[in-house]
Amino acid sequence: MKFPKHLKPAGPQGTELLARERSGASFDVEQLTRFMYGREHLERQAEILKLLEHDPAFDKTNRYYSSREERLHHAFGKEKRFVELCMENKWGYNEIATAEYLIDESGPFTLHRTMFIPTLQGQCNAEQRRKFLLKALNYEIIGCYAQTELGHGSNVQGLETVATYLPETQEFELHSPTLTASKWWIGSLGLAATHAVVVARLVTKGKDYGPHTFIVPLRSQVDHKPLPGVTVGDVGPKFGVNTIDNGFLLFDRYRIPHDHMLAKYSRVTLDGDYIKPPNEKLSYGTMVFVRANIVRSVGLFLARAVTVATRYSAVRRQFVDSTIPSVDPAGTETQVINYTTLQARLFPAIAQAYALLITGQWMMHMYEEFTARLADGDLEMLADVHASSSGLKSLTSNIAIEGIEMCRRACGGHGFSAFSGLTSFYADVLPNVTWEGDNFILTQQTTRYLLKTFRDVVKELRTGAAAAVSEKQSVQNQTSAYLRAYLVSKHGAGAAPAWPVNTPEDLLRPELLVLAFAHRAARLVERAAQRLGPEGNSWNDSLVEVHRASEAHCQLLLVRNFVDVATRSSVPEGLRAPLNALCALFALTTLEKVGFVDLFEDGYLSSQQADWVRSRIHQLLGEIRPNAVALVDAFALPDYLLHSALGRSDGRVYESMTEMAEREPANAGDVYPVAAQTVRAVLDGAQARKERRRRAKAQAQAKL
Amino acid sequence: MKFPKHLKPAGPQGTELLARERSGASFDVEQLTRFMYGREHLERQAEILKLLEHDPAFDKTNRYYSSREERLHHAFGKEKRFVELCMENKWGYNEIATAEYLIDESGPFTLHRTMFIPTLQGQCNAEQRRKFLLKALNYEIIGCYAQTELGHGSNVQGLETVATYLPETQEFELHSPTLTASKWWIGSLGLAATHAVVVARLVTKGKDYGPHTFIVPLRSQVDHKPLPGVTVGDVGPKFGVNTIDNGFLLFDRYRIPHDHMLAKYSRVTLDGDYIKPPNEKLSYGTMVFVRANIVRSVGLFLARAVTVATRYSAVRRQFVDSTIPSVDPAGTETQVINYTTLQARLFPAIAQAYALLITGQWMMHMYEEFTARLADGDLEMLADVHASSSGLKSLTSNIAIEGIEMCRRACGGHGFSAFSGLTSFYADVLPNVTWEGDNFILTQQTTRYLLKTFRDVVKELRTGAAAAVSEKQSVQNQTSAYLRAYLVSKHGAGAAPAWPVNTPEDLLRPELLVLAFAHRAARLVERAAQRLGPEGNSWNDSLVEVHRASEAHCQLLLVRNFVDVATRSSVPEGLRAPLNALCALFALTTLEKVGFVDLFEDGYLSSQQADWVRSRIHQLLGEIRPNAVALVDAFALPDYLLHSALGRSDGRVYESMTEMAEREPANAGDVYPVAAQTVRAVLDGAQARKERRRRAKAQAQAKL
Repeated sequence: MKFPKHLKPAGPQGTELLARERSGASFDVEQLTRFMYGREHLERQAEILKLLEHDPAFDKTNRYYSSREERLHHAFGKEKRFVELCMENKWGYNEIATAEYLIDESGPFTLHRTMFIPTLQGQCNAEQRRKFLLKALNYEIIGCYAQTELGHGSNVQGLETVATYLPETQEFELHSPTLTASKWWIGSLGLAATHAVVVARLVTKGKDYGPHTFIVPLRSQVDHKPLPGVTVGDVGPKFGVNTIDNGFLLFDRYRIPHDHMLAKYSRVTLDGDYIKPPNEKLSYGTMVFVRANIVRSVGLFLARAVTVATRYSAVRRQFVDSTIPSVDPAGTETQVINYTTLQARLFPAIAQAYALLITGQWMMHMYEEFTARLADGDLEMLADVHASSSGLKSLTSNIAIEGIEMCRRACGGHGFSAFSGLTSFYADVLPNVTWEGDNFILTQQTTRYLLKTFRDVVKELRTGAAAAVSEKQSVQNQTSAYLRAYLVSKHGAGAAPAWPVNTPEDLLRPELLVLAFAHRAARLVERAAQRLGPEGNSWNDSLVEVHRASEAHCQLLLVRNFVDVATRSSVPEGLRAPLNALCALFALTTLEKVGFVDLFEDGYLSSQQADWVRSRIHQLLGEIRPNAVALVDAFALPDYLLHSALGRSDGRVYESMTEMAEREPANAGDVYPVAAQTVRAVLDGAQARKERRRRAKAQAQAKL
Repeated sequence: MKFPKHLKPAGPQGTELLARERSGASFDVEQLTRFMYGREHLERQAEILKLLEHDPAFDKTNRYYSSREERLHHAFGKEKRFVELCMENKWGYNEIATAEYLIDESGPFTLHRTMFIPTLQGQCNAEQRRKFLLKALNYEIIGCYAQTELGHGSNVQGLETVATYLPETQEFELHSPTLTASKWWIGSLGLAATHAVVVARLVTKGKDYGPHTFIVPLRSQVDHKPLPGVTVGDVGPKFGVNTIDNGFLLFDRYRIPHDHMLAKYSRVTLDGDYIKPPNEKLSYGTMVFVRANIVRSVGLFLARAVTVATRYSAVRRQFVDSTIPSVDPAGTETQVINYTTLQARLFPAIAQAYALLITGQWMMHMYEEFTARLADGDLEMLADVHASSSGLKSLTSNIAIEGIEMCRRACGGHGFSAFSGLTSFYADVLPNVTWEGDNFILTQQTTRYLLKTFRDVVKELRTGAAAAVSEKQSVQNQTSAYLRAYLVSKHGAGAAPAWPVNTPEDLLRPELLVLAFAHRAARLVERAAQRLGPEGNSWNDSLVEVHRASEAHCQLLLVRNFVDVATRSSVPEGLRAPLNALCALFALTTLEKVGFVDLFEDGYLSSQQADWVRSRIHQLLGEIRPNAVALVDAFALPDYLLHSALGRSDGRVYESMTEMAEREPANAGDVYPVAAQTVRAVLDGAQARKERRRRAKAQAQAKL
């Protein structure tokens, strides 16, 4: 089935429309790209893209039409070639991450790279590094990280798999006592892994020491069959990431040698004595890194969706609206990007993507500083980065997922087509709200930290110890500072605090935007503290307030980081205006959406100010409109990555939709055989019924 | 790959837990089911379920593992058998709808039943009914409804396909002048249909009369090949509904006879003169019916998701929380349904499902009354039902989709497994936010009506004509009434109106809940009117306010309808308490979520009242907790429909997860061949690298 080759889309053509958009932008796209990512990232992306985009192992042409089986076959082929490229080009962490990101198809070896190796790096002692880590790095073993169980996700302490130490043979015996003890969801386990890091309850000398990690051979290095005592397989089809072989795993009194318990921190002597780690929290580092990474990735994911939706909205036209200025002939439908309901959804999402990328970078800097200090034995930052990374992972993944789905819907009907590039993409990134800590559970960690800081500040104010505050400008101090400022202004002044925005022009002062978020965050922390107060409710009865306090704190972090970057003196002249507009739009739309209700409630915000905010948002949408396409171009996402008919950088949307439809396997012939057979049978059935009725009628008449 | 048969989940078992939940309910489940659906619906469902659940044509066992091709084959088989059952059992509209709902797999003939036949019923003249409708009803032709084009979705007036009347041959010539004129997304068109109702611009005697409908043969009744001049095929893979063959269609100067223009309302004489319809809006009826139907369906969809999430949350246990009372042995993890963060998400969704079902029924009653009156030539209700059905379609589908996804996430990691029954289901129901009018565009229709009513009321108050209001209690009058009450209280009283809730107990008075929603809706209508005022902004510049006014009005309708039903004197005694708790929870959580900000802003709501609302919500969650499982049981959704490991009525969650994983095709053998081959090749590559390094080192040493 082919489309007539002589037909073109109704004009103006998408290519012209995007060119027109680009020529109308007020800033230099490449300059913004460099400002956001730095040169190194861009060069790496360009170099790796060249290696990937024409290699058949990474070809995406058939991706949207393939069954799970076909995609798994393709994914294994990709892994084989990926290992070759890794080795040939001596890729390090960043190159591997960039390549995985561009290929955009997590596969059976993904968890080997992202969880198995990092865990070995973090938890092997010196001997184990030689024995296991080097082999893993050289792909002599393929591994996974087996923690979650069928009946146990969030509560690691509740895991059921047991590893009992047997001093007589110097072995651990792994055992799954129940069905719910089955490891479940373990990526790279279902079909691929030869080994697993298994989290199991350590039992020695009759005592249960809770979850510990073990490296466990699972499949034969010769024929890949599961080893005796091991039950392993794939957990089956999922919403997304179907090219990953998430697996299940049970042990039936399965033994491993003594040196297979990862022993960097805690260990068991050959006699079976337990040696506990010097500090329980040392292993938090990996968790922080993984979460910081999620914050950064989800920013790129959202950038991808807004790129598609913005470009398509500039090409797509619906309705003739004569109130909207246009250079097109009268009667030409207007670009949907001109409609304010679309702008009010799409432009804040562009701003969110920038906000997430900025805070993602901030988070990685924090992590690097933390590990540098940790190397010197300095644990001071741990509470901060753990709290921030937890709350931000939760908030930013929620923002990104919501934004991606909003973008998909903003593409109208075609957003539902796989060719939009947003359907499988949405499903693939969705687990970010659940894995590495469910988004509702993670925020409890953040608020625990906020409550502790709040109580410290209250105590400090009561005892007049404010002057004694450490001078180091750590995040903790920034948190203390806004909590302190709130308490001082609330209890000091007499009158309830009000937002010091006295004219519409005051909204142009970014520090006043930060102030509103700080006030709100402090107030919600206070509210949670009050609810939980000495005679108050239980933790469980306060979870709603606990969750909201973490969200408010992290919203403040996002706004503050954006303001910090946008107002930095190093921002090139030409980028100041667009960056500040995005920053203001992010802050004000977030304020309107999530903040107004709290700020109205305690009288901090007036109805007049709210009107100014809404007017300013409306004005900002208009300011951003001519730059919209350029702002998403600046994300510099290659067409190879997007793989989207709607989001193509050249605007050939409709040509691309029809070309992709031609490749649908069901269109291979003039007729789809099973359709022809079924329709034939149904029409024949109808004729037979008619014939029976005709005959029955004739008989009835004959009888008369 | 089989799971060890002797293993059981860790206790207490899911079956016991659900039994315990059921025995703790305060009301009779069957009584509530009968109250909600009526006996007829339940009997029909039971009867049809019996016919379907053991018929191999409707078997769901392999559904989650199948490729699109396999699913299409299965779907064609389903259609063939479905037609047989329809005919054997002489199914009418309701039976067919119930069967489609239970089978839950829209197929290549679905649009024949839901759009092709209804359009013929609505738009054929008497002769055409004989010629086309009877054949369609008897499956002598299989049809679809071809309106949307590749470049034209929402704007029907912008369609490009042309039907030019040629008086010399008494034919219409259908033509697709551009690529964007290609019909697109047309269900049942891609592979199955022999005929289509095509919406094309009618041109006769050189004049363009805009979109009209034509019945058009597409494929040979003999070999199913596309007829010459017709290009037709499948639009390819989609997020969901992949068992529907959504198609594309182009015409190359393709001719159909004069009598193929559907001529009930407007027509063209044999000479080519255009006869316009007596009333342009007569064809709105079908649209109202389709949208009213969506309102009802999405209530059932949400009910399905909350059934799964609630049952699973009663079986799933995480963390030991000693503050939560339990009959289980100390140290047993608590059921996740006991956590307030989960209750605060899940229980309002249960209440929403009830709210949507109730308003769905109300909407269908409205539609029936409207058609009855229409038959008498009475068009008075048209504006009402058109406005309500548009706004409610938008709001209720948004609520349902958001609620379904919330439920999926509330199931934690397993919500991402296809076996949850919520993944493909989510994707399948998702188009409800886009089709039959995009949810952002539809609300414009509702607000246009609200603005007109508002202006009428303003005029009426100004001229003192209030007394002359018609006495008929139509919806329009209810709308006028709340707008009038708002204006009177605002401008009459002097002081700004405030919510007359003076004690926490006042929240038990449902009429005060309705009042808050009415105040808010009126205020947002007024705000939109002000923004658009004589010297105000353009419609495009006011779309955000326009959208919000429609939402607020429809939120009021949902609350008012729920209150009307829950406080009806016919409610059986035992159901009063649970229904009123649900109704209050729906109203108060909706108020908190969407209403607080507006009500704080104009001083209608005080901080004190907001605290009462939050306390009452917290209290209601506790009241509903013991009834939660019973409340979803009362939706009476058969296990065959749910097809969910997590939502099974018997609570065998983990057994079912493992049984379904065993059926994953990749687990058929001990090894997955391509995995074994790939891993083998990669391990060999690693050995080869080691060998090369070893040799290079040896050579280097030999050289020394």
